[in-house]
Amino acid sequence: MSSERLERGKKKINELKEGHDQELLDILGKTAPDLARYVLEFVYGDLYSRDGLDKKTRQMLTIIILATLGTAKLQLHFHINAGLNLGISRETIIDMFTHLAGYAGFPAALNAVATAKEVFAERDQKGLST
Amino acid sequence: MSSERLERGKKKINELKEGHDQELLDILGKTAPDLARYVLEFVYGDLYSRDGLDKKTRQMLTIIILATLGTAKLQLHFHINAGLNLGISRETIIDMFTHLAGYAGFPAALNAVATAKEVFAERDQKGLST
Amino acid sequence: MSSERLERGKKKINELKEGHDQELLDILGKTAPDLARYVLEFVYGDLYSRDGLDKKTRQMLTIIILATLGTAKLQLHFHINAGLNLGISRETIIDMFTHLAGYAGFPAALNAVATAKEVFAERDQKGLST
Amino acid sequence: MSSERLERGKKKINELKEGHDQELLDILGKTAPDLARYVLEFVYGDLYSRDGLDKKTRQMLTIIILATLGTAKLQLHFHINAGLNLGISRETIIDMFTHLAGYAGFPAALNAVATAKEVFAERDQKGLST
Amino acid sequence: MSSERLERGKKKINELKEGHDQELLDILGKTAPDLARYVLEFVYGDLYSRDGLDKKTRQMLTIIILATLGTAKLQLHFHINAGLNLGISRETIIDMFTHLAGYAGFPAALNAVATAKEVFAERDQKGLST
Amino acid sequence: MSSERLERGKKKINELKEGHDQELLDILGKTAPDLARYVLEFVYGDLYSRDGLDKKTRQMLTIIILATLGTAKLQLHFHINAGLNLGISRETIIDMFTHLAGYAGFPAALNAVATAKEVFAERDQKGLST
Repeated sequence: MSSERLERGKKKINELKEGHDQELLDILGKTAPDLARYVLEFVYGDLYSRDGLDKKTRQMLTIIILATLGTAKLQLHFHINAGLNLGISRETIIDMFTHLAGYAGFPAALNAVATAKEVFAERDQKGLST
Repeated sequence: MSSERLERGKKKINELKEGHDQELLDILGKTAPDLARYVLEFVYGDLYSRDGLDKKTRQMLTIIILATLGTAKLQLHFHINAGLNLGISRETIIDMFTHLAGYAGFPAALNAVATAKEVFAERDQKGLST
Repeated sequence: MSSERLERGKKKINELKEGHDQELLDILGKTAPDLARYVLEFVYGDLYSRDGLDKKTRQMLTIIILATLGTAKLQLHFHINAGLNLGISRETIIDMFTHLAGYAGFPAALNAVATAKEVFAERDQKGLST
Repeated sequence: MSSERLERGKKKINELKEGHDQELLDILGKTAPDLARYVLEFVYGDLYSRDGLDKKTRQMLTIIILATLGTAKLQLHFHINAGLNLGISRETIIDMFTHLAGYAGFPAALNAVATAKEVFAERDQKGLST
Repeated sequence: MSSERLERGKKKINELKEGHDQELLDILGKTAPDLARYVLEFVYGDLYSRDGLDKKTRQMLTIIILATLGTAKLQLHFHINAGLNLGISRETIIDMFTHLAGYAGFPAALNAVATAKEVFAERDQKGLST
Repeated sequence: MSSERLERGKKKINELKEGHDQELLDILGKTAPDLARYVLEFVYGDLYSRDGLDKKTRQMLTIIILATLGTAKLQLHFHINAGLNLGISRETIIDMFTHLAGYAGFPAALNAVATAKEVFAERDQKGLST
């Protein structure tokens, strides 16, 4: 049943950020309820619920894909934050974006670092050490 | 003569938004007058003046191309508005962006919906029901 | 249950090209079985099974998204073919790609037309008039 | 009148490659006659007929734009050839693609060089020294 | 020795904007020190220190690459400014972006012009005539 | 000295594929010798010689960046092969591309899987079990 995927997706998205299932529905639910449901069911209930990749590696992939696209600043911001919540270090995130310079060019790398700096600063303000 | 294409283009652009020919010239005319002229002559006087596609379908194509590019927020904002002016429903626009998720990924779809939400809110404030 | 989405997806994909559910599984099934399943369940069982857009319009969107991306020649080839199967005319497809020139540039438009020409030639050889 | 732009465009495109106006019409004319006409009228009759940039600089811009896009191999091939016809040296073209590595990444640069190598080899076979 | 490339890079970046080596280190140095060093060593100490292209042409290439990418507004802003500092005229920059419309589409061209307008206005406020 | 970075880069590239430093110079050395040197010095001597990311993770990043770009088939082919040489499993590579579908869309994922299938088949023919 669809609701099983939905529940699994909600659980997974909340591992990235506590309560984000509700935030997503608040943002999208009235305007694009099906798209919100697909995010939960497919992206989180299917893709994020797979076993092949460990949790940190999968999150690193999400982060570097978004940095490569270069058109998804909000999502990159969210997923850097989520990565830090999962225990990926700030240094690792910067190392990933440094590596990106060779393959997508320096502007892509610099823009990703700029978004990371914003996330780091917000976490510093909240007293988060990682 | 070039001025025939120009006049046809002005008429076409104003079907999307009343008075937009002048707005375009106000924004671009001093800095990039030839580019402004090409927008009117080529994009509107040629492309938008073709007969093969009906008016709503053509506008849907413009909207989904811009959403796919992911680098044209201002133009997407303008053309969503224009689409609503032409009678495309808000639901149809959201359906289009939902479909996009499968082909350009969820970030592209979510960003397009975010722009649509801005347009919808502005129109609500103006008392427009569509 | 997932198998309901899967069955619905198979039915939908076969509307685009008879027997394509099996072709997809033949190509992807051994190497990437989950990805094949997601194509059927999510892209066709969810997205293509929605009601908001009529069948031809949805197919036109798929086609123009792929032409805009410019990195999906195989998929564009398949979906132009599918569009013709659904009754979109060759002229309409060329009109769509002509419109694209203004928004994604002439190289994107010319490459899309080149793929369309290949599809048209293959259909001519099969004796298909559309 | 439109035909003035068309004639100007034909003349301009033939400066890049002798007889290419007819080649373009042979390739596109039956399938997408309006797109072919827009290439001649707008890209060559308008853009390539402007005075602000000298001939070689404009051609260098066309080449590097196509290399940056990374989705326009055929057009890049044509315009590298055209650039050499206009007197841009092979070394300059390689210098341009080397510079690209910093901004669009090494894969973009390497792919552009691969296309340049093909053009150079074809010209060597024709006995062209540049 | 690496420090030779670093010094050469600092000198080159300061030709584009006086004191920018320090600005770059201020922005990136604490968060991504190696990436900052690679910008100076590789982009400026290697690429920008090559002899094959004259200074203005190389800067024009950087500008048009960034405008084509469409995802690098900050870098485009910096490099338009740098181009004007090197003596490229405002008219030439607008001519370049006008040419871009044919190859990357009108939205790319319009967005690049919008960034140029911002740079021009800032320079007007500083009393710079070019 | 530059030659230290060059030697380090050659050693690193050969970890990915034995003898590839020479293959690269054979392909690029006559046409674009500086670009070949930058690949060895910067991409391999600098980026690939960093310590922050373990060897497999770094290679997974390279692979997914190339798959996301969608314009770098040759490089993706090379780096999938290199990843398998380093001990990343075929299943992991397919898992990565399956994840990609959510963020860059299904066509990007399907094209990456198609390239992986080619690499797998070539390795099967060579009698490689991984």
